[in-house]
Amino acid sequence: MAMVRRILLQIPLDRASGVALFLQIKRHLERLVASGVLPPEAKLPASRELARGLRVNRATVTTAYDMLVAEGLARAHVGQGTFVAGRAARPPAAAPEAPVGADWEAALSRVARRLAADAAPRERFERASAGGAGVISFVGASPDSTLFPTEAFRLALNRAIRREGRTLLQYHAVAGYPALRRYLATWLVRQGIEAVEDEVLVVSGSQQGLDLIARTLLDPGDAVVVEQPTYPGAIQAFGAAQARLLPVPIGPEGLRVDLVAATLEGQRPKLLYCQPGGQNPTGVSLDPTARRALVELCARHRVPIVEDGFGDPADAAGAPPLRALDRGGLVLHLGTFSKILFPGLRLGWLVAPRALVRPLTGIKQLADLHTSAILQAAVFDFCRGRRLERHARLVRAEYRRRRGVLLAALRRHLGRDATWTMPAEDGFSLLVTVSEELDAAELLPRAVARGVAYTPGAFFFVGGEGTCTLRLSFAALPASRIEEGVRRLAEVIRAARRERPLRPAARRALPLV
Amino acid sequence: MAMVRRILLQIPLDRASGVALFLQIKRHLERLVASGVLPPEAKLPASRELARGLRVNRATVTTAYDMLVAEGLARAHVGQGTFVAGRAARPPAAAPEAPVGADWEAALSRVARRLAADAAPRERFERASAGGAGVISFVGASPDSTLFPTEAFRLALNRAIRREGRTLLQYHAVAGYPALRRYLATWLVRQGIEAVEDEVLVVSGSQQGLDLIARTLLDPGDAVVVEQPTYPGAIQAFGAAQARLLPVPIGPEGLRVDLVAATLEGQRPKLLYCQPGGQNPTGVSLDPTARRALVELCARHRVPIVEDGFGDPADAAGAPPLRALDRGGLVLHLGTFSKILFPGLRLGWLVAPRALVRPLTGIKQLADLHTSAILQAAVFDFCRGRRLERHARLVRAEYRRRRGVLLAALRRHLGRDATWTMPAEDGFSLLVTVSEELDAAELLPRAVARGVAYTPGAFFFVGGEGTCTLRLSFAALPASRIEEGVRRLAEVIRAARRERPLRPAARRALPLV
Repeated sequence: MAMVRRILLQIPLDRASGVALFLQIKRHLERLVASGVLPPEAKLPASRELARGLRVNRATVTTAYDMLVAEGLARAHVGQGTFVAGRAARPPAAAPEAPVGADWEAALSRVARRLAADAAPRERFERASAGGAGVISFVGASPDSTLFPTEAFRLALNRAIRREGRTLLQYHAVAGYPALRRYLATWLVRQGIEAVEDEVLVVSGSQQGLDLIARTLLDPGDAVVVEQPTYPGAIQAFGAAQARLLPVPIGPEGLRVDLVAATLEGQRPKLLYCQPGGQNPTGVSLDPTARRALVELCARHRVPIVEDGFGDPADAAGAPPLRALDRGGLVLHLGTFSKILFPGLRLGWLVAPRALVRPLTGIKQLADLHTSAILQAAVFDFCRGRRLERHARLVRAEYRRRRGVLLAALRRHLGRDATWTMPAEDGFSLLVTVSEELDAAELLPRAVARGVAYTPGAFFFVGGEGTCTLRLSFAALPASRIEEGVRRLAEVIRAARRERPLRPAARRALPLV
Repeated sequence: MAMVRRILLQIPLDRASGVALFLQIKRHLERLVASGVLPPEAKLPASRELARGLRVNRATVTTAYDMLVAEGLARAHVGQGTFVAGRAARPPAAAPEAPVGADWEAALSRVARRLAADAAPRERFERASAGGAGVISFVGASPDSTLFPTEAFRLALNRAIRREGRTLLQYHAVAGYPALRRYLATWLVRQGIEAVEDEVLVVSGSQQGLDLIARTLLDPGDAVVVEQPTYPGAIQAFGAAQARLLPVPIGPEGLRVDLVAATLEGQRPKLLYCQPGGQNPTGVSLDPTARRALVELCARHRVPIVEDGFGDPADAAGAPPLRALDRGGLVLHLGTFSKILFPGLRLGWLVAPRALVRPLTGIKQLADLHTSAILQAAVFDFCRGRRLERHARLVRAEYRRRRGVLLAALRRHLGRDATWTMPAEDGFSLLVTVSEELDAAELLPRAVARGVAYTPGAFFFVGGEGTCTLRLSFAALPASRIEEGVRRLAEVIRAARRERPLRPAARRALPLV
């Protein structure tokens, strides 16, 4: 009601137009009803009130209302007011004014159509996982916002704006705020990544980095090697470039480099995408020997690697980022402030071989001109003086603790009913495998009813696998909730296992329709 | 030198690794030299200084330096210090360690390759137009940053962070910050655009809006009608979708709607893109009758319209935005805060037909997950209480004044040597046409030498036209500079016209090579 009043008080009246004001009001109301801004049965404001708000005579408003009632678009109830007519009561629109809308479904691009086809299970999941406040949610791979250095960042923002607000609010360089690029280059050197400022591009989060890489390097039909399971945002970005995905399984030690070799030989892929540390969803990390083997293998086949560094390359138990092992300039390294600082900034970086800097910058420019410089300057201000390292150390210790609590709870409650991956120190999540006859997506509504939510693992797999897996993200949950969440999950899984043997027979009894 | 010192002081030393510290330092320096972070002839810090910085014995550093010198990677000059060797002096890298780099040029996608081909004239222009402080630049279509309400925005940011900083810095909704979507819906209603919150998507600037639309609706080979001349960012976004562009000329009154009809009939395009108000580059506005005719024409042919509203639909001398005239739900309306507030925010909006909201949101998510909520919340806070309208009125008045000064100066100085388009009240620029034998891109270096810069018009044309046109953007220039800039421009143009008749003969004298 307040909304309706607000909208109506903003009817634009042109007193010089020669069109009577009551007609202007009436026509405007018609459009609002036709477009659904004013829904059926909405109560219109009292004529006295609307007249005052629009600074017109009350009779102007009542005339407009009367015309709407006369045309069946509104109903007047004595003593109650005027209401938008229900759908049934409304007269059909006159033929010449009927909308001649486009057939939007037919108009969609191939990419949008494919995305729409994938959207249904995702939306079902979103509805299913949205429980009440009592639900312990292992769903989102977010960091814990109670650990955010929000106040320090606010001060950094203020310093940045006071220092150079006008420049930061004007159009800015496509490749990023120079001081942040310089800072990142130096910071990366400390992780063993020798990059100079020119090779570091600021992007709006590593998701954008993936999309820019896909658009810069992939044509429809090109093949991309991905880990199985892998990050769904990568599946989507490569899918939007209409690439073929070649999944290679993750083992207990991370990507099965031994199996990568066969894929590279057989298929001549255009790229290999991986998360060597704290892999999403499994949390596992490749050890240094495997990393070296992977880089050498790709160099031998001249297949570029897209390394999704997940923001904190230093933490992978001493394992160097792939880019640090790269002699041939074949590794594109992606990083993000999302896990070590704030995901809401949508800030990440892309370290590219020099020959790709210009093509990537060109695609970035057509995608969004540039990333907001004001946030870049604030992050730069925040990070200086080793504050980023200090903050990262702090949150890492806390996430490590939570990981320990989760692993202990899994052993205690699910030791006999499931297996799970072993996340490294920089992991945010792990993948649980339950017995094969269970479907984690089907089970989710029951889990939510019991007060625990997770992400069905199938979202992380290419080609319909992973139905009996589920991802537990633990970074955003306090330790006490983790223990209780796993207890509830174990109950649900055990109950489902007890029922399952009956299911196949019961199913066969159903009529085939 | 300061940079070299900073990088070297961050050599990561692992005292527990069992590898001698001097070897760790030496290997790190090798990598820095090989990757070019340390360029040839760079002076290394004094061993005493580096030792202190790394907290190692000075002998550790001198040993590392000595090994580099022994291997030809560095030179020592007594009394002067140690320097990275020049390229010639360096020993060739051993065969098994030679880079096995990818052929990046061959690896580029079709889209990236096309973009790279277009980049050369653009870069030439950028170099040519970058004059010193004395150059009066009509180049960038930016608003004037001295008119920015920077301080008010800083306060709005602080309020937003204090109120809900943690939430704003966490992952956020793909379609935008709800309060801003609601605000925009209401604000748009005042311009005659009936939109509900669900139909308003927040995007990272209208450039992103264009790219999202192109990716959602266009497949390679689809045709798009564009104004000739038009905004180059649109040419790029549709080009990235591999669309065919069908240019229809702009006349003195804006897009030649009479010529659109023939194009729609002959070609069955997928979209029509236009800027009905304050068109970039011409500044012209379509009058209400032409707008109505355009919308009806497209509705008849069921061709969706992408209306680039340029941020201030209210200002087009009373002409309604196309979306307000649209009964068939065929108009996608794009707007931006870039011209009425700050371009550096990279914030815009897209009003979409309801059936396209989900597909567009899907593409937005794979492009960058979402736009930073912190800036959205700050803009929402800033805009409330009609502050956006008040600010827009203020800057509009100033830009109107500058437009008047530019038009007067053109009449005074160039009345006999050029013609120009007549920008509407919401224009930011106009297009000057000089005599046909002049090439505005060729003329630019001479103009810059004389102290004035502009954008060659050819960038705004599809298919190599417009060489004798140039764009003058006037919004960011104080009135006094505008007058002087036009005076200089007139001198350059007149001088060039006097020379030109000689040119063809001189050209023929050149050998054909």
